[in-house]
Amino acid sequence: MQVQSQPHSLPRDRLLEALRRILPESALRHTTEDLRPYECDGLSAYRALPLVVCLPDIIEQVQAVLRLCHELQVPVVARGAGTGLSGGALPLENGVLLSLARFKRIIDIDLENHVARVEPGVRNLAISQAAAPYGLYYAPDPSSQIACSIGGNVAENSGGVHCLKYGLTVHNVLGLKVLTIEGELLELGGKALDAPGYDLLALMSGSEGLLGVIIEITVKLLPKPERAQVLLAAFDDVVKAGEAVGNIIAAGIIPGGLEMMDTLAIRAAEDFVHAGYPVDAAAILLCELDGSNAEVSEEIARVREILQGSGATEVRSARDETERLKFWAGRKAAFPAVGRISPDYYCMDGTIPRAQLPRVLAEIARMSAEYHLPVANVFHAGDGNLHPLILFDANKPGELARTEEFGQRILELCVEVGGTVTGEHGVGMEKLAPMCSQFAPAELEQFHAVKKAFDPDALLNPGKAVPTLARCAEFGAMHVHHGELPFPELERF
Amino acid sequence: MQVQSQPHSLPRDRLLEALRRILPESALRHTTEDLRPYECDGLSAYRALPLVVCLPDIIEQVQAVLRLCHELQVPVVARGAGTGLSGGALPLENGVLLSLARFKRIIDIDLENHVARVEPGVRNLAISQAAAPYGLYYAPDPSSQIACSIGGNVAENSGGVHCLKYGLTVHNVLGLKVLTIEGELLELGGKALDAPGYDLLALMSGSEGLLGVIIEITVKLLPKPERAQVLLAAFDDVVKAGEAVGNIIAAGIIPGGLEMMDTLAIRAAEDFVHAGYPVDAAAILLCELDGSNAEVSEEIARVREILQGSGATEVRSARDETERLKFWAGRKAAFPAVGRISPDYYCMDGTIPRAQLPRVLAEIARMSAEYHLPVANVFHAGDGNLHPLILFDANKPGELARTEEFGQRILELCVEVGGTVTGEHGVGMEKLAPMCSQFAPAELEQFHAVKKAFDPDALLNPGKAVPTLARCAEFGAMHVHHGELPFPELERF
Repeated sequence: MQVQSQPHSLPRDRLLEALRRILPESALRHTTEDLRPYECDGLSAYRALPLVVCLPDIIEQVQAVLRLCHELQVPVVARGAGTGLSGGALPLENGVLLSLARFKRIIDIDLENHVARVEPGVRNLAISQAAAPYGLYYAPDPSSQIACSIGGNVAENSGGVHCLKYGLTVHNVLGLKVLTIEGELLELGGKALDAPGYDLLALMSGSEGLLGVIIEITVKLLPKPERAQVLLAAFDDVVKAGEAVGNIIAAGIIPGGLEMMDTLAIRAAEDFVHAGYPVDAAAILLCELDGSNAEVSEEIARVREILQGSGATEVRSARDETERLKFWAGRKAAFPAVGRISPDYYCMDGTIPRAQLPRVLAEIARMSAEYHLPVANVFHAGDGNLHPLILFDANKPGELARTEEFGQRILELCVEVGGTVTGEHGVGMEKLAPMCSQFAPAELEQFHAVKKAFDPDALLNPGKAVPTLARCAEFGAMHVHHGELPFPELERF
Repeated sequence: MQVQSQPHSLPRDRLLEALRRILPESALRHTTEDLRPYECDGLSAYRALPLVVCLPDIIEQVQAVLRLCHELQVPVVARGAGTGLSGGALPLENGVLLSLARFKRIIDIDLENHVARVEPGVRNLAISQAAAPYGLYYAPDPSSQIACSIGGNVAENSGGVHCLKYGLTVHNVLGLKVLTIEGELLELGGKALDAPGYDLLALMSGSEGLLGVIIEITVKLLPKPERAQVLLAAFDDVVKAGEAVGNIIAAGIIPGGLEMMDTLAIRAAEDFVHAGYPVDAAAILLCELDGSNAEVSEEIARVREILQGSGATEVRSARDETERLKFWAGRKAAFPAVGRISPDYYCMDGTIPRAQLPRVLAEIARMSAEYHLPVANVFHAGDGNLHPLILFDANKPGELARTEEFGQRILELCVEVGGTVTGEHGVGMEKLAPMCSQFAPAELEQFHAVKKAFDPDALLNPGKAVPTLARCAEFGAMHVHHGELPFPELERF
């Protein structure tokens, strides 16, 4: 079953003429100059100009654009802030780019039920800012939270530092209003628990714009914890740091955040942000505990003991709120910091079962030597969500190709140990080949059948997120068997 | 789009002959006497005998049964323990009943990743029992947890007392192996976080056997909390008890369990179990706090204060573990206890946004007087998941009809205030008409399209869970508008 878009030959003029009947001129962009700002998302490796950009203000206009695209069989790509890292919001040359940037109202904050209803263009951080006067916040916090919008967060099922304890986007969204390609409104979930019928809300989360266009989101708000405290632990060995992560979780503690950085990342961040990191360490862990005063005091003591027992060479707690924020600033700036020390870097995003961390980190180090390409590791350790950054120079002949091969091998390793080829950055354009390693043909076929149930003509963001079997054959990518119990040390019952 | 099954006329003899080629005689039941134990699930109002019951031992046999049913176009209903409360596992007269009772192996308990892989016929409680020696447990705890099986829990997305803090079944399942009607294996999720592709794992959860047959489940195991303590609070007014629930949550406390019972339920349970409940109270709340010692001590003190501030006439904490278990025994036995004081009762299951509790409880009391039918309320208050039990006598002319009308009005009220027509008992056969109130035609059509993407010939549990538009017309049931901000007291931003 093929859901790839067939290049359409509708001329821009005809499309514009039809769009002008449903949108004011102020909601249309069509000159090359005006289209340029939309040519890529956060992954600049892929660029394309759409036929037209639409900037509707109200839901009825979105509905009209979708109906028109359906009628004319023109592909349509929805986008929020365009900060995605996998090319998911890349425009199609033969299509409409539907920007939801003007949908930035916070519709209501319901204090009794602890929920907020917001429009898709609202920035992630703006929700927490609006809820702050009431002592509430929205938990998922992607590093791009100043800029990224909540509609895109849902489309990508975004994660963040606090998702270990508080869940991914899907766990913090209670309701969605979605428009289908035919302009039909679906109300999924709401303020009450567990709607009957198939869980289309979860299905929509992380579907990367292929199933419908999200026009309203009801999110859970949480009370701000009384106290948050961060421990910084240094290790002389990355593998020991990986083991410490497992030991903390095994003790029954779920930290608010549990992040790891290795030497290269530590030094790059320290040079950039002056966070006060120990630059001679092989790895550091940042472990945040949050909750009531008593709870945090108790857990800080327990985690300190576990870190020391796991071989940490130094364990420090942030002296005050300023130092706590500094510790996090270093972590959040790690990607751009690495960008300063290398002409180019390739950011990978895979997940593995947490217990495989020491093994996989050791294997990445081995491959780094094999490929003669340095790797900076900076990632959500508690979630087993890796972000190896491969450092390279695209101007050196052969380095880009070697980097891509190395990256593909890291992702295959993730699948082999029971993990996935993308944790939180999405598939978009970039991870189509690794998807062929991750999923068996029957599974890919089932994805396409689901797509067809929403969008039979494949007009919504076609060609992204789920490769066809034909594309997998072109890539030469093979399904990697997910070894059950791949390593003998796993306990058997 | 219709997905109702068309009665099939395949004679039992021919079906049996085909089944005998793929299953041993010991795995087949076909005499009326042998079929009788399978004629209903936990909802005895609906009964039917299937053509044949199959009891396979291994996955290849399940696969062969599904392929055969697909080839012969015979409908097939999968079932676990058959304890469901909505007729979801009711056999079809023209179909095969596929029992997964023999799949009761705990395949492995992985202590490093805190997960267990189990077969679908494993009893809910057996997972926690197997994990107990390692200090771990499986959190969702339906009242039927001694008997119900984990495959059915996933199919119904079961809840339980502890789901307020620890989530529903879907939040505690990390991976599924599913067979499609064509016998294809789908591996969904796994031990690592957040698989890419559409979230078919969540889609499968609560799909009531209409999309596939679950043959393996990977569940999350949690460390047993150091301490659990229960508070019992008595109120002279149900509405005050409802407000107390909101006050606890608003204070940022998420109890391990937060349950409410009103006078009728309190007295019935007390007579039956002698839990030590105050029988003169209009309502009681049971509030369990769990976690570390320090955390529980702190929260117990805060919750006690909130309960007193909300007008509780008495707040007691369980003196010891024996009394704690007694408090819970009364709650868990409440349904059968009510069964002892009334010839018949009709158990409703709806959810509402928590802040609507006081309002909805008052309205149910008003309707109870209007219909001259007593109601016992016993429910997951923290989740806003109501279980009004309408007491009636089916032998009194007109009482059943009046009860059903009353029940339907309660569910419509739930929808009107932004809730749902079933929280955790599923739709099955019983809630088909209320589903027509809950969902708009476009939403029901989208459900059918999803069903078709998995099972185009509608052979898996047809006629359950999602009504066709034609059936909604037969029921005369109309979509109820979900009022946004239905009551003026809701805060606006």
